[in-house]
Amino acid sequence: MSTSIRLGKANDMPHVLKLIKELAEFEKEKDAVEVTVADLIRDGYGKDKLFLCFVAEVNGKIEGMALIYPRYSTWKGPVIHLEDLIVTEKMRGHGLGNALLTEVVKYGHQQGVKRISWEVLDWNEPAIDFYEKKGAKVMRDWDVVQLDAKGMETYLMSE
Amino acid sequence: MSTSIRLGKANDMPHVLKLIKELAEFEKEKDAVEVTVADLIRDGYGKDKLFLCFVAEVNGKIEGMALIYPRYSTWKGPVIHLEDLIVTEKMRGHGLGNALLTEVVKYGHQQGVKRISWEVLDWNEPAIDFYEKKGAKVMRDWDVVQLDAKGMETYLMSE
Repeated sequence: MSTSIRLGKANDMPHVLKLIKELAEFEKEKDAVEVTVADLIRDGYGKDKLFLCFVAEVNGKIEGMALIYPRYSTWKGPVIHLEDLIVTEKMRGHGLGNALLTEVVKYGHQQGVKRISWEVLDWNEPAIDFYEKKGAKVMRDWDVVQLDAKGMETYLMSE
Repeated sequence: MSTSIRLGKANDMPHVLKLIKELAEFEKEKDAVEVTVADLIRDGYGKDKLFLCFVAEVNGKIEGMALIYPRYSTWKGPVIHLEDLIVTEKMRGHGLGNALLTEVVKYGHQQGVKRISWEVLDWNEPAIDFYEKKGAKVMRDWDVVQLDAKGMETYLMSE
């Protein structure tokens, strides 16, 4: 089995979207995916680059990806956020997730950022164990809050 | 009492940093603040603008701020993250937090993003109540994970 990690290119986006949809389906949220291949190409490879992604190839086929972008910490300055770390179901347990995460940490280290952050489902104990063994801190007392497009409309109407 | 919300300018950054430090002290993490006024000016008003901030003024004095930046959702595309929403202790309860959040939601709506996200401490019930009343979803099963600079070093050494 020949595996390699490299930067994703615009023409990898159909494969990347497939991975995104596979994960959404696993989380029973398939219909929540609104982005298209064209969106990913525009947002990752257009004038304003909103993200960077790494892909994991096995025998020349994309079987995993990690998507990151900059954030800003008012305590630490520029930091990096790992939005998605996805490995196809059939290729799990072969170290692809580990190899992708290592690439992200290397990248963050090269960029000189003081933190890499991501989010995890609190019942996903295998993932939490993996992250903690890697030295990451799972901040169980911090929750994620989201106001979606409909929520924004309702909010502004009630003001 | 005359209050107003406006975009923060480079020369507001000393006041903004004071607010950041006040919040960190409240969270018993004062020493965690490593950013300086010069960092905030470079990162918010330099060539690469990493954030945008709004300030709340009361009688011409800055008493609150909201700091935002773009993120990228692999489900929704470009979204906005609210990193900090801070009001000085003595000015709480006067609607400044509400006015700042409204400004952020207006901005997100104008930009056409499909989501605004932020993070909240799970024991901060007054904040959670406030956000939920505003239509936001507090995702209690998602935790924040952070790998800091020391963790990155350890990670890469163990590979």
